Amino acid sequence: MQTRAVVLDVFGTTVDWRSGVARDVGAFFARHDLRDRDVFAFADAWRDRYQPAMEEVRSGRRPFVTLDVLHRENLIAVMRDAGIDPDDFPSAELDDLNLAWHRLDPWPDVVPGLRRLKTHAIIAPLSNGNIRLMLDIAKRADLPWDAILGAEVSRAYKPSPAAYLRTLDVLGLPAAHVTLVAAHNGDLAAARACGLRTAFVPRREHGPGQTTDLAPAEDWDVVARDFIDLADRLAP
Amino acid sequence: MQTRAVVLDVFGTTVDWRSGVARDVGAFFARHDLRDRDVFAFADAWRDRYQPAMEEVRSGRRPFVTLDVLHRENLIAVMRDAGIDPDDFPSAELDDLNLAWHRLDPWPDVVPGLRRLKTHAIIAPLSNGNIRLMLDIAKRADLPWDAILGAEVSRAYKPSPAAYLRTLDVLGLPAAHVTLVAAHNGDLAAARACGLRTAFVPRREHGPGQTTDLAPAEDWDVVARDFIDLADRLAP
Repeated sequence: MQTRAVVLDVFGTTVDWRSGVARDVGAFFARHDLRDRDVFAFADAWRDRYQPAMEEVRSGRRPFVTLDVLHRENLIAVMRDAGIDPDDFPSAELDDLNLAWHRLDPWPDVVPGLRRLKTHAIIAPLSNGNIRLMLDIAKRADLPWDAILGAEVSRAYKPSPAAYLRTLDVLGLPAAHVTLVAAHNGDLAAARACGLRTAFVPRREHGPGQTTDLAPAEDWDVVARDFIDLADRLAP
Repeated sequence: MQTRAVVLDVFGTTVDWRSGVARDVGAFFARHDLRDRDVFAFADAWRDRYQPAMEEVRSGRRPFVTLDVLHRENLIAVMRDAGIDPDDFPSAELDDLNLAWHRLDPWPDVVPGLRRLKTHAIIAPLSNGNIRLMLDIAKRADLPWDAILGAEVSRAYKPSPAAYLRTLDVLGLPAAHVTLVAAHNGDLAAARACGLRTAFVPRREHGPGQTTDLAPAEDWDVVARDFIDLADRLAP
């Protein structure tokens, strides 16, 4: 295939963040007599603070910090919003809860799809997650990345152009030989603007109430049902 | 084991750069009626320019550039030193010869040793090679890295302290939980000065005439015969 490298969005596209975060939040709540709380609402509220936190960095108002740092700050904020006082818990326990993002499960088609793609192309995450975060997800779930690229390598958060352009530079490949895979039309639009090829895989990452990214918003180069279908199309 | 991450030197320690470079140089010479040349002398001369080139960056005299860039410049210089005019060859062919460093073979104990280490700890190269260089070696030789760390991530060349300290930061681990594996006493001394644990594996990377690094120069935490012995000691 023309594509020499397939770079993949991770949260939502490769792993099911909502179920994984809700599971670990649920265990935390159960330990602390907070069983009446809605774990999915808490996971959604935590995720809602993701884009605004990165925007502080993208805008230049804040120097680059890793997503682990942003997730930890956002955890404190979302606890306060929920009327839970973070000071009631040992800091180490909040640190561990923050690692919920390191323990996310891939969608069931991911490992077989990546294994096949890997035989035809370089495969790497192009995520806003930091290296250790991606590494922990991969080691736990056996994701066979050839390297871990993304925000910590490029020192830029998607959809800033630098996030894509510096990744091309690291790969030493022209944009036309690199395909971004994402469940998010906005990520793909930003990648296309940098010349990358684009592949859309729809995911129900937000659960049953999802209203966004249910279908491709542009004529992406590839539209696939899942990562197995993606491998069929990119590496027939 | 206490070690949560094993980071490894690559050129010399993990892969046999001298045989691999000599092989590709030999193919280049054969294509261009240069069969009378000593391919090992050429490989050694190319490697001899490695430390001085990095020293320009370490000293701050030159901004960080990747090892691929330094290798390409050094190739031109070593050709001129050998009385071969690089302008006699298409640039693309020199680019390909420069990729000899991407096609190096691991020592025979490396893959089985890494596979065992990987079940007990994070494993990653901590090399002066750039990400794409490490990636190509790994993909060709099936090295099962959990991530590719090193100079391009830390923007620093070993043995500068930043090369080790920024790697610890990326891993999110205290130095005492990280072991550097190297065939070079100097690399290990610099890592130890940053608090890392140290493992020495002797290699005949310079061929039969090797006079340096034949034995441990300090009481390294581990001294192993090869990567299989290393796995026995680090992950019994």
